[in-house]
Amino acid sequence: MIPSDKNIIDAHERIKGYIHRTPIFTSSSINRLVGADFYFKCENFQKAGAFKIRGALNTVLSFGEGEKIKSVATHSSGNHAAALCYAASLKGIKAHIVMPHTAPEIKKRAVEGYGGEIVFSEPTLASRESTAKTVVEKTGALFIHPFNNYRIIEGQATCGKEILEDLDELDYIITPIGGGGLCSGSCLAAKYFSNKTRVIGVEPKEADDAFRSIRDNQIYPSIAPKTIADGLLTSLGPLTFEIIRNNVERILTIGEQTIIDAMKMIWERMKIIVEPSSAVTLAAVLENKELFKNKKICLVLSGGNVDLTKLPWNN
Amino acid sequence: MIPSDKNIIDAHERIKGYIHRTPIFTSSSINRLVGADFYFKCENFQKAGAFKIRGALNTVLSFGEGEKIKSVATHSSGNHAAALCYAASLKGIKAHIVMPHTAPEIKKRAVEGYGGEIVFSEPTLASRESTAKTVVEKTGALFIHPFNNYRIIEGQATCGKEILEDLDELDYIITPIGGGGLCSGSCLAAKYFSNKTRVIGVEPKEADDAFRSIRDNQIYPSIAPKTIADGLLTSLGPLTFEIIRNNVERILTIGEQTIIDAMKMIWERMKIIVEPSSAVTLAAVLENKELFKNKKICLVLSGGNVDLTKLPWNN
Repeated sequence: MIPSDKNIIDAHERIKGYIHRTPIFTSSSINRLVGADFYFKCENFQKAGAFKIRGALNTVLSFGEGEKIKSVATHSSGNHAAALCYAASLKGIKAHIVMPHTAPEIKKRAVEGYGGEIVFSEPTLASRESTAKTVVEKTGALFIHPFNNYRIIEGQATCGKEILEDLDELDYIITPIGGGGLCSGSCLAAKYFSNKTRVIGVEPKEADDAFRSIRDNQIYPSIAPKTIADGLLTSLGPLTFEIIRNNVERILTIGEQTIIDAMKMIWERMKIIVEPSSAVTLAAVLENKELFKNKKICLVLSGGNVDLTKLPWNN
Repeated sequence: MIPSDKNIIDAHERIKGYIHRTPIFTSSSINRLVGADFYFKCENFQKAGAFKIRGALNTVLSFGEGEKIKSVATHSSGNHAAALCYAASLKGIKAHIVMPHTAPEIKKRAVEGYGGEIVFSEPTLASRESTAKTVVEKTGALFIHPFNNYRIIEGQATCGKEILEDLDELDYIITPIGGGGLCSGSCLAAKYFSNKTRVIGVEPKEADDAFRSIRDNQIYPSIAPKTIADGLLTSLGPLTFEIIRNNVERILTIGEQTIIDAMKMIWERMKIIVEPSSAVTLAAVLENKELFKNKKICLVLSGGNVDLTKLPWNN
């Protein structure tokens, strides 16, 4: 059943002691540039460097004592993987991670740093899923889907809950949209904890499956997308699709160069490190300035795990 | 006369409304690495990207109404320049900036962005000073020295005052040391507002004039130093020398590679952007772990103005 307001409040209580209440930053120069009032929820400062720890912790900490779960497994482009390993390590549980061999080095090292075991796949959803199936069969691990899981969605919803506790009268929360965990969670938070705030999802034009899925009311698979936003490669799942379809204001798609420009703008003006998947939110603003003029908007900077030796403006 | 506690309190009142009360960050992974309790005062998030705005604002806002100052001038490797331009612009005053032609592009653009006029010099103190003298003679501008000025030192001292208001029982405040404005201001703040805290200054081995000056009790000039920490090229002035000499715990010098390693560590683990001159503080810790074990230490991350297309680990 779709998470209730109480489920999200309970999730927040469950994970509160293990996560950072991440700060909300502002930038007067970006406000001036667009003529709007922006707030940046800094999940790049979150434990393990991304919002993903919220869902992973909520899932692992929900395991009952009687369940005797000895290991978990997942497939992930990286941040969910590191988050699950971290969450599992807190409970003394082993984590098996299926990861595309193209994932950034820093994300691989993060998984290993938290004691996770990596199994590589091709960078397609099909290959990830079949590899994960093999791992689960071999190890007996409990599979924790990166987004198509209500415990995960509840956890990610706590980010929106914090935003709405900290900021009044928000017009929009803008989130990246990959598998839709953060976006669907934010939709639920806005629905339960605000009368006014609407959620906008953003994805790269080069990986616009969510945009097409919502437009046509059917889930399209994401087939070998090529985008710098390596956290946004996957398609929606049935659970996230259902929530987003019924609650999202709209989905915006943006070009690769704007993602790079937005990322550099955040680094230069705000002095914080965000990964390309985070920068899509500001990119959407830069490509749609009129839409946001005079509004009060919170952008979720979803993560900050970047390979510093491979920056897009140095290519 | 050396600034009193009241002078620093007054300076803080004067500038408070124009600066950020910058946050203090922590990093559990850096704490574990050294076995100490670290706090990072994020002056990289300060207005104009560095602590320098504190001294510049205190100076400009101290001008009496009767003084009719129409323009100011300074020489600076960059951050003081941008800060003075910003402060001057608030009062409708013109700013002339002498800057070494080797200063990072981003620092030149910052000065221009705040409406300052740049005059280039060679990257030596002698050339800076003679060029500034010419500018002052030609324009009648009031020369605002980047550090050898008590209004500047009072302003920089407000950073240490904030640290000591936010953190109890600190063993050390560690600051970079270039001309000594931040270090001398921190020494005064520790002297007046704490019974326990001692200040340690850090500079590159390649620009160790402050270390030698304090050791031998005489000011050595800084002659054409070559270090990645472009904010720490200058030698002490008589005013900063006097305060530092009488109050600093010690001065540590560190190697270039450690500065780069420390900078990368801050970017990767804390997801914030600091310039090399800020990273010398963590570099000193990395080279002297035993000295800091089990201590409670605040590192001042002095600035975040970096040319993102020229990162030291990509060379």
